[in-house]
Amino acid sequence: MKKKYNVAVVGATGAVGTKMIEMLEGTSLPMNQVKLLASKRSAGKEVMFKGTPLIIEELVPESFTDIDIALFSAGGNISKQFAPEAVKRGAVVIDNTSHFRMDPEVPLVVPEVNPNALKRHKGIIANPNCSTIQMMVALEPIRQAYGLDRLIVSTYQAVSGAGINAMEELKSQAVAYVEGTPADALEATILPSGGDKKHYPIAFNALPQIDVFADADYTYEEWKMINETKKIMEDDSIKVVATCVRIPVLSGHSESVYIEVKEDGSNVTKIRELIANAPGAVLQDDPSQQLYPQALTSIDRKETFVGRIRQDIDIDKGYHMWVVSDNLLKGAAWNSVQIAETLHEMDLVRV
Amino acid sequence: MKKKYNVAVVGATGAVGTKMIEMLEGTSLPMNQVKLLASKRSAGKEVMFKGTPLIIEELVPESFTDIDIALFSAGGNISKQFAPEAVKRGAVVIDNTSHFRMDPEVPLVVPEVNPNALKRHKGIIANPNCSTIQMMVALEPIRQAYGLDRLIVSTYQAVSGAGINAMEELKSQAVAYVEGTPADALEATILPSGGDKKHYPIAFNALPQIDVFADADYTYEEWKMINETKKIMEDDSIKVVATCVRIPVLSGHSESVYIEVKEDGSNVTKIRELIANAPGAVLQDDPSQQLYPQALTSIDRKETFVGRIRQDIDIDKGYHMWVVSDNLLKGAAWNSVQIAETLHEMDLVRV
Repeated sequence: MKKKYNVAVVGATGAVGTKMIEMLEGTSLPMNQVKLLASKRSAGKEVMFKGTPLIIEELVPESFTDIDIALFSAGGNISKQFAPEAVKRGAVVIDNTSHFRMDPEVPLVVPEVNPNALKRHKGIIANPNCSTIQMMVALEPIRQAYGLDRLIVSTYQAVSGAGINAMEELKSQAVAYVEGTPADALEATILPSGGDKKHYPIAFNALPQIDVFADADYTYEEWKMINETKKIMEDDSIKVVATCVRIPVLSGHSESVYIEVKEDGSNVTKIRELIANAPGAVLQDDPSQQLYPQALTSIDRKETFVGRIRQDIDIDKGYHMWVVSDNLLKGAAWNSVQIAETLHEMDLVRV
Repeated sequence: MKKKYNVAVVGATGAVGTKMIEMLEGTSLPMNQVKLLASKRSAGKEVMFKGTPLIIEELVPESFTDIDIALFSAGGNISKQFAPEAVKRGAVVIDNTSHFRMDPEVPLVVPEVNPNALKRHKGIIANPNCSTIQMMVALEPIRQAYGLDRLIVSTYQAVSGAGINAMEELKSQAVAYVEGTPADALEATILPSGGDKKHYPIAFNALPQIDVFADADYTYEEWKMINETKKIMEDDSIKVVATCVRIPVLSGHSESVYIEVKEDGSNVTKIRELIANAPGAVLQDDPSQQLYPQALTSIDRKETFVGRIRQDIDIDKGYHMWVVSDNLLKGAAWNSVQIAETLHEMDLVRV
């Protein structure tokens, strides 16, 4: 085990990269050097790290010389091109893009759920999709206790998942609309998906499209939740289906989750106890006090908040719940840094 | 059959009342006089109707003398007190509050779904909850073709359902937050429920509480969707469950709806055809063109928009869809005026 690591952040100026730097400021991971990498455009900019200015460097293959852990969040194409360069130079890559997630050679990890998958890493570890991660934190304790037969999720996702520019666009649209700009004159250049043809306003709207459309008229975001759930829980028999929706929230993904458990013996009280004792989860469920998770109160928190737990009206083994987490933290930056901490604890940083 | 009706609007200054007046301006209902009623506070104000100013009068029992049809939308307590006064004076009441909805003597009507229930009215007809109405328009053609075994709905509801002041509060909060007011300093006095103890900001947030909490930790709004669906579809065996969520949208309720049909033979193409041919529904479902219903584009439209129709990944008879409608129109004002038109067509205005 190395005593102290050199850590690189790729995409240091992005919505997630910025939060990765914040998470590294508070990490228990023993660090020697932190290197911030971004495109040529951002190179030379200064970012404060624990009170000291760090200069952002341009990302090139040689950036990874002497790097032990590289956190990637600069888009799938950057990961595709540069993650192998980092691995070649001896770094472990923790990749926040979707590029490697379904590669059978690449562990897809939520540390509270499947840390042992890290043992078979070959240099690259994938960070799951934001909306999948928080659902896994909430559901894993229930799966362990009663098994999971099926789950149906409808998401209420924040725009920060689409980056800083999407957040700025939401704010501009909101102010413009309040000041009288008609809906069809609002400027929209990013959402629902930067890579798709048409763009729609998100302010005072709900867009049932995240990422582009794929098989069977499900979006790629919906397929991520379906496929990643099965991979993380290591069970292809779980029935999973998702409807992914962007709403005018800046940060904090919310999810309306319906599950059916397999075994007998569950009830709302027991489900609440499981959540209350689950690592990474916080039970916020007291209707008498109007206590339930909210996007706004989840911001800058590392935990996943779970509430509105109810038994289905007709199905004894069916439960509904409301799951909220800061998509930039547990959904991205924190889960990545937590993977790094777990790799260190398990002595898996060197391949 | 009377040739021309005297119509009263109770709650003429509210979010729904204002839209009721708009809908009456375009109605096919033959009208003689339109009387606008509200609280003493609003009495004396002028409202334009078809280019002519009408003076708002204070609501008193005698307001209903000579009124044939009275549209109520001024809260449950006003309906409780004044609807019987209107009926006593010979008016048919179409009530937009929840007060009479589950009364077995009172028909609960979506004209596209159960117009024949109007035949047994005894003076009062209830307009269903906004989120229920649009779901009924979308699902009734599917129920008729294949039967409905169960439905699970997660809503994305607009703040206009909570009134004009809630809309103003959302706008103020949104601008304040963009200008730097922290989330915990945003002024919140109305949502999630005017009648409950605590209030939370809705701007850039999602609140999984609409109306107050009731049995089994479901909210009253969720129970409305459950109970009203069974009453409107006249089938207590349909399994219905709802999670109702307020999002920062001004008008236009969206719903993520999962259904399982009873009969064999359905597929996505046939479901789409049913919606395309359904009264009051508009199919907006072309992923290749990123065409799907949106809250912003539903505003001021009377129809219910349906898209994102997909077969469930694992359950052959399971389908997912996205249902959007202007909650102030089909969800309230238009459905009420449409009931009046239907009563006239069926010659049921006189009891």
